Amino acid sequence: MTSTVANRADRVIGRCRELAQCTEVPGETTRLFLSPPVHTVHALVRGWMEAAGMAVRVDAIGNLHGVYAATEPNAPRLLIASHLDTVPNAGAFDGILGVLLGVAVVEELRGERLPFAIEVIGFSEEEGVRFNKPFLGSLALVGKLDAETLGRTDPRGISVFEALNEFGLSHLPMEEAAADERVFAYLEFHIEQGPVLESENRSLGVVDAIAGQTRLRLVFTGQANHAGTTPMRLRHDAMVAAAHWIVEVEQYASSREGLVATVGRIEAKPGAVNVIPGEVTVSLDVRHTQDEVRHTAISTLLSCAELAASSRGVAVAATKLHEQAAVPMNVRLIELLTAAAEKAGFPADTMTSGAGHDAMIVAEKIPSVMLFLRSPGGLSHHPDENVLPQDVEAALATAIKFLTQLSNAAAVGYRL
Amino acid sequence: MTSTVANRADRVIGRCRELAQCTEVPGETTRLFLSPPVHTVHALVRGWMEAAGMAVRVDAIGNLHGVYAATEPNAPRLLIASHLDTVPNAGAFDGILGVLLGVAVVEELRGERLPFAIEVIGFSEEEGVRFNKPFLGSLALVGKLDAETLGRTDPRGISVFEALNEFGLSHLPMEEAAADERVFAYLEFHIEQGPVLESENRSLGVVDAIAGQTRLRLVFTGQANHAGTTPMRLRHDAMVAAAHWIVEVEQYASSREGLVATVGRIEAKPGAVNVIPGEVTVSLDVRHTQDEVRHTAISTLLSCAELAASSRGVAVAATKLHEQAAVPMNVRLIELLTAAAEKAGFPADTMTSGAGHDAMIVAEKIPSVMLFLRSPGGLSHHPDENVLPQDVEAALATAIKFLTQLSNAAAVGYRL
Repeated sequence: MTSTVANRADRVIGRCRELAQCTEVPGETTRLFLSPPVHTVHALVRGWMEAAGMAVRVDAIGNLHGVYAATEPNAPRLLIASHLDTVPNAGAFDGILGVLLGVAVVEELRGERLPFAIEVIGFSEEEGVRFNKPFLGSLALVGKLDAETLGRTDPRGISVFEALNEFGLSHLPMEEAAADERVFAYLEFHIEQGPVLESENRSLGVVDAIAGQTRLRLVFTGQANHAGTTPMRLRHDAMVAAAHWIVEVEQYASSREGLVATVGRIEAKPGAVNVIPGEVTVSLDVRHTQDEVRHTAISTLLSCAELAASSRGVAVAATKLHEQAAVPMNVRLIELLTAAAEKAGFPADTMTSGAGHDAMIVAEKIPSVMLFLRSPGGLSHHPDENVLPQDVEAALATAIKFLTQLSNAAAVGYRL
Repeated sequence: MTSTVANRADRVIGRCRELAQCTEVPGETTRLFLSPPVHTVHALVRGWMEAAGMAVRVDAIGNLHGVYAATEPNAPRLLIASHLDTVPNAGAFDGILGVLLGVAVVEELRGERLPFAIEVIGFSEEEGVRFNKPFLGSLALVGKLDAETLGRTDPRGISVFEALNEFGLSHLPMEEAAADERVFAYLEFHIEQGPVLESENRSLGVVDAIAGQTRLRLVFTGQANHAGTTPMRLRHDAMVAAAHWIVEVEQYASSREGLVATVGRIEAKPGAVNVIPGEVTVSLDVRHTQDEVRHTAISTLLSCAELAASSRGVAVAATKLHEQAAVPMNVRLIELLTAAAEKAGFPADTMTSGAGHDAMIVAEKIPSVMLFLRSPGGLSHHPDENVLPQDVEAALATAIKFLTQLSNAAAVGYRL
């Protein structure tokens, strides 16, 4: 099979670029959940799936499913999935590449049947842009789409339910979006969306865990005062207290392996050149694959904030906005996928995903693993987002070896 | 005279509160340059001035002048002035108190004539709110109101010239706003607008200089990246670079006597919780009474910014927005005013004004001095702005002693 892999890689990238033309906003790629261009995307992907011998349907949440049958009718089933929606002004590969690599893997079989079926899913919603909540597609797969979510409205006041009706899906029972009972494993290809693989000059990384995450808002409250008439010793400067703490956040995270901590937002009030800030609000985003490391980081950084503030007569209050536990990938699948990459000639270390992915949702119900492809420049959520043909080839070659390993594993009943 | 001082102090404060009722916005004190309530303010102050025996006129820029004649018709003239406009949602004393203390000083003379005339001026514009340029009243006094300024427009598109016409002043020649040639000295009472006198438990301070000021904008440019997928070691975080520098600004200024440095504004882009800031823009306001100290501070702090940035692979660029040299007050007047306060029983140290005042403009042409009154809580430009009756009494008692000193100085021809 190897000789055709290079051509298939180019074809996968070409298809990603073709789907990037399906957009709500001409001149860029913007394709939110259930937007009109999704119909075109479904038609194109359905065509490729059917040509590869798959049976295709769209479920009640808009996920596109293509099933490639096994040698036996009631065989176990492998899922290969990612998402087909995009952020505004997106690139061509985030999510899309994972779906089209799934299709390419099936094409690579050229009609050969395995002891398990392969179901490729293009999730309808992962980015969370339209309804300000991510993962609607994979939540439906694991039966966790609740009424609150279906009642949410987009900025035009249209609810998820109404959007499904508009898209022509409201006649379908939501239960049929749930994963088939025969599914035994989930594989997701995804661009890394970060700079690690590039910095290590590697094509692929096997994801061992999706980092847990805590988001906080901190408000430093000092005293607004005249910048000219208030001597340094009589100030209660909320800006300097916050700045002191931001430097400590960097220092702390830099000294703990695998920890990332980011202050992405800051607002100073009153925000005048000649007024000492009386109130500064900042965000904190902390991620790590070990929840206890993240919890220790949060409590240490909150103590640092107290000190940075109190030494200046400034108060600080923190509010937790979001918390998500780390999600480990399946240990056996990590081993199989790492071995497959090795055999394919692309040794892949394990690595952490700092970003959330559909695999994070699916892993709660189904043994899951992810394969990251190098992101040139670490770039994502940007029109210049890219992937190298050689890395797509590496992923395809690895996937074929992985299927072989799984076929062998079938003999032991897929105990993952 | 001393026995009446207390009553006069209460009266001065009462008049300030009365003028605070003259407002464009009911329920607060907002009285911009040439706004309708200024007519009422002029009518009230004119009444108090005329009752004290002064000849009153409004000049071409809207300054209100009250002249209390000397023993001789062509005698030298002392100016006592401050401003009658306010910031939005102001207190009752910033500027106003200085004008009404001038009137109270004349009242205190009870018709007694001195070897010099006293001209009390209520400047029409100091805050710079309406036309985004301050000191229009005192600039007219020193003949520095230029055509560019008169052509400026307010947010409604009305020019200074049109506003003067609307207020009924356009028939007056601007030259008559210039200071009388016989003026030999300028005295301005003003609330401190800072916490220094209160922290030292003193009523009064004699201003020896108005600090010079530099305002800069700094832009730190790093690289926006995903907060989850970018390890600490691969970041170019503009926020942390800026924060590091903000802490150094505090440290540097705190270790130099009399230096103040403030970062009042900050903006981080893209400004999302989960994105490492790629660009952070901050303001810097540095003030000191010695220009060389300020210049050294600016160049040192710019070097610090370079280092804080470059150590993180971040670039930094600075733009100078504003520069104002320090303005020393007249040495002889400082001595006389300090001695007067001492004789009145209110020992007053000299102090720096970190804020700009009309005296800063006037001092370029006329020997000038300022007397600061304690600001409770250091509060100004706020509805709770206040002044203590005992401090107003101290200022009045000092002014009366100052007039006596000046009368004696008249014998040596007012060589200031």
